[in-house]
Amino acid sequence: MDVAQLRAHTPGCAESAYFDNAGSALPAERVTRTVIDHLLLERRVGGYVAADLAAGRLEAVYTSVARLLGARPHEIALVENATRAWDMAFYAIPFQPGDRILTSRSEYPSNALAFLQARDRYGVQVEPIPDDEHGQVCLRSLAELLGRGRVRLVAVNHAPTYDGLVNPAAGIGELANRAGALYLLDACQSAGQLPLDVRRIGCHMLSGTGRKYLRGPRGTGFLYVSQDVVGTLDPPLLDLRAATWTGPDAYELRADARRFETWERNVAGLLGLGAAVDDVLTLGIDTIRDRIAALAGRLRAELSRLPGVRVHDRGTVQSGIVTFTKDGWTAQDLVARLREAGVTADFSFPSRARFDTRPDKPAAVVRASVHYYNTDGEQDLLTGTLAGL
Amino acid sequence: MDVAQLRAHTPGCAESAYFDNAGSALPAERVTRTVIDHLLLERRVGGYVAADLAAGRLEAVYTSVARLLGARPHEIALVENATRAWDMAFYAIPFQPGDRILTSRSEYPSNALAFLQARDRYGVQVEPIPDDEHGQVCLRSLAELLGRGRVRLVAVNHAPTYDGLVNPAAGIGELANRAGALYLLDACQSAGQLPLDVRRIGCHMLSGTGRKYLRGPRGTGFLYVSQDVVGTLDPPLLDLRAATWTGPDAYELRADARRFETWERNVAGLLGLGAAVDDVLTLGIDTIRDRIAALAGRLRAELSRLPGVRVHDRGTVQSGIVTFTKDGWTAQDLVARLREAGVTADFSFPSRARFDTRPDKPAAVVRASVHYYNTDGEQDLLTGTLAGL
Repeated sequence: MDVAQLRAHTPGCAESAYFDNAGSALPAERVTRTVIDHLLLERRVGGYVAADLAAGRLEAVYTSVARLLGARPHEIALVENATRAWDMAFYAIPFQPGDRILTSRSEYPSNALAFLQARDRYGVQVEPIPDDEHGQVCLRSLAELLGRGRVRLVAVNHAPTYDGLVNPAAGIGELANRAGALYLLDACQSAGQLPLDVRRIGCHMLSGTGRKYLRGPRGTGFLYVSQDVVGTLDPPLLDLRAATWTGPDAYELRADARRFETWERNVAGLLGLGAAVDDVLTLGIDTIRDRIAALAGRLRAELSRLPGVRVHDRGTVQSGIVTFTKDGWTAQDLVARLREAGVTADFSFPSRARFDTRPDKPAAVVRASVHYYNTDGEQDLLTGTLAGL
Repeated sequence: MDVAQLRAHTPGCAESAYFDNAGSALPAERVTRTVIDHLLLERRVGGYVAADLAAGRLEAVYTSVARLLGARPHEIALVENATRAWDMAFYAIPFQPGDRILTSRSEYPSNALAFLQARDRYGVQVEPIPDDEHGQVCLRSLAELLGRGRVRLVAVNHAPTYDGLVNPAAGIGELANRAGALYLLDACQSAGQLPLDVRRIGCHMLSGTGRKYLRGPRGTGFLYVSQDVVGTLDPPLLDLRAATWTGPDAYELRADARRFETWERNVAGLLGLGAAVDDVLTLGIDTIRDRIAALAGRLRAELSRLPGVRVHDRGTVQSGIVTFTKDGWTAQDLVARLREAGVTADFSFPSRARFDTRPDKPAAVVRASVHYYNTDGEQDLLTGTLAGL
């Protein structure tokens, strides 16, 4: 990986030492250029003519996302963001009263809110799976919970938003499939930083976003739905993209994942998403994972050496999301001081993950999420600034 | 209205005689520039920092949309497109078996699909309201249908996508309110070309898009929900923007229209929407309506004079959407020939509006939708090209 060249093609690298990749990563020059070029085309010839001219390239985005996930293009829906992607899958499940949903303790609040709404709406039960001693979804506990029967859905995140670990996605898939449960994987934080192979993972549905580790535009997301289950799912919202109105009283749903799309879409953004995914495919996701793991490992080690600084990451496998606190400082104040020193980081609130009932979890942490374009020098700026406080 | 200046600031006007404003209108230079400027800011400082920097301007978009609609800012949700806006309102209604939905015969297929899905899901009845002799929603028939009781929702379009008329939105509102029914107005084709005042219209919910007559970006839409009813509506999909996760088993919905939003959004596009709405407010919607009405009236008259050409528009009040056919030609072929002559128009399929059961309705029509930046000369190019075929 030619990091210098990748940085040269990432204008934001000149602006700050950028560690908010789990929030919204810096796009490559050509990704933003792809979006802008289409906006300029729309301005010149109008939105519909522009979409006609870009139809082949838009179709290619499905192929690229499918390659990223080891899926087939007709198993991909392109949507507005990861929340919409996840929602379209989750709310499409025909729950019955008494059905059980198993989820992770570190589940993202939006997903948890959807579970609780489904509980109120359909009378389903929502059960967080215990963590193992490393903080990951405990496979033994999962097996036990599945053994009690009536599990309709296992819905977990691949990499939580706040504590640096990676959940054992394939192990979870094996157990869920054996129990006949649907498996929805939230890959919001893993797409673009970790290999994703839906067949190997065994998930039936997987949601992701453009703007995080994939380095795509905001306002883009995608959903994978296995052709094996798509016919059993009833989209929560329907439009003429998802179905055909065949008579005054009749309609037919699409047979593929596009039953979860809307006809109207942010075409420019989706073309940018395609460019970003193509960059990942070119670089190779294993190379990306290795570089991120090396950088994040080094950063955790350096942070741990600083007096008063505590790294809060858990897990035997860790992601690029590095979280820490410093005694006597709020996370918000630390982020502000880092910003003054030219370091962009963000904060995260484990306190808001209310299935995570650890009494000792931190209320708020600094989240310094590493991408492959980061350098040792940037990390030294971060740790050096912290040391000087 | 200084049409020459407005055209000079609309780069697409130099490209073709543009009559696809009901599809996706030409944006003003500054609207696209607003979107691009934010994308460049995101590229430089990252998506979240950019959003923080634009927070005040994003908040101002709510105020602008509220002004456009005669609403209050907290009654506005900014979403991904008009379909999502309409869906979030429609699917939030707690329907009971036996509830009745009254709708227009010209209803947009996506809305009709949602009605039919609700019929299958909740056991509601869907009933198209008869047209009056001019093709508009017949107020006498509506009153009669409402009188039979159990109408939960009146959901109609303000301006159909295909036959040039404007429905009597305020008259419908008066009847719906008297009967205690909810009233959802689809303003997809009217926002930006006709005055909209939600109090005068009496609608409880109104959906619109950025990309049509408002001349905003693709991938943007908005929803008005009256504060009087918002508390009775349960968003079909929930995320952490819409609700707060207050405990492992509990959550609280937002008390305003933002319960229909998602946290992640196309910030650049929404800023562009704000710029487009501000342009409408500056020009004045009455001025815009008058100019469009004059141009469309002239175009209909000129088209009617051409041998073999039939104008299919109905209604006592008409919109900028002009539809026609020419004997011996398919609509698709006509659009292609117009395009060769430098005229951008689109086609529309009345055949797809399956509540419209007129035996004599055309299967497909050319749709030449006029905006205020069009000129007599452009219209003459259109009619001259048709005459020469």
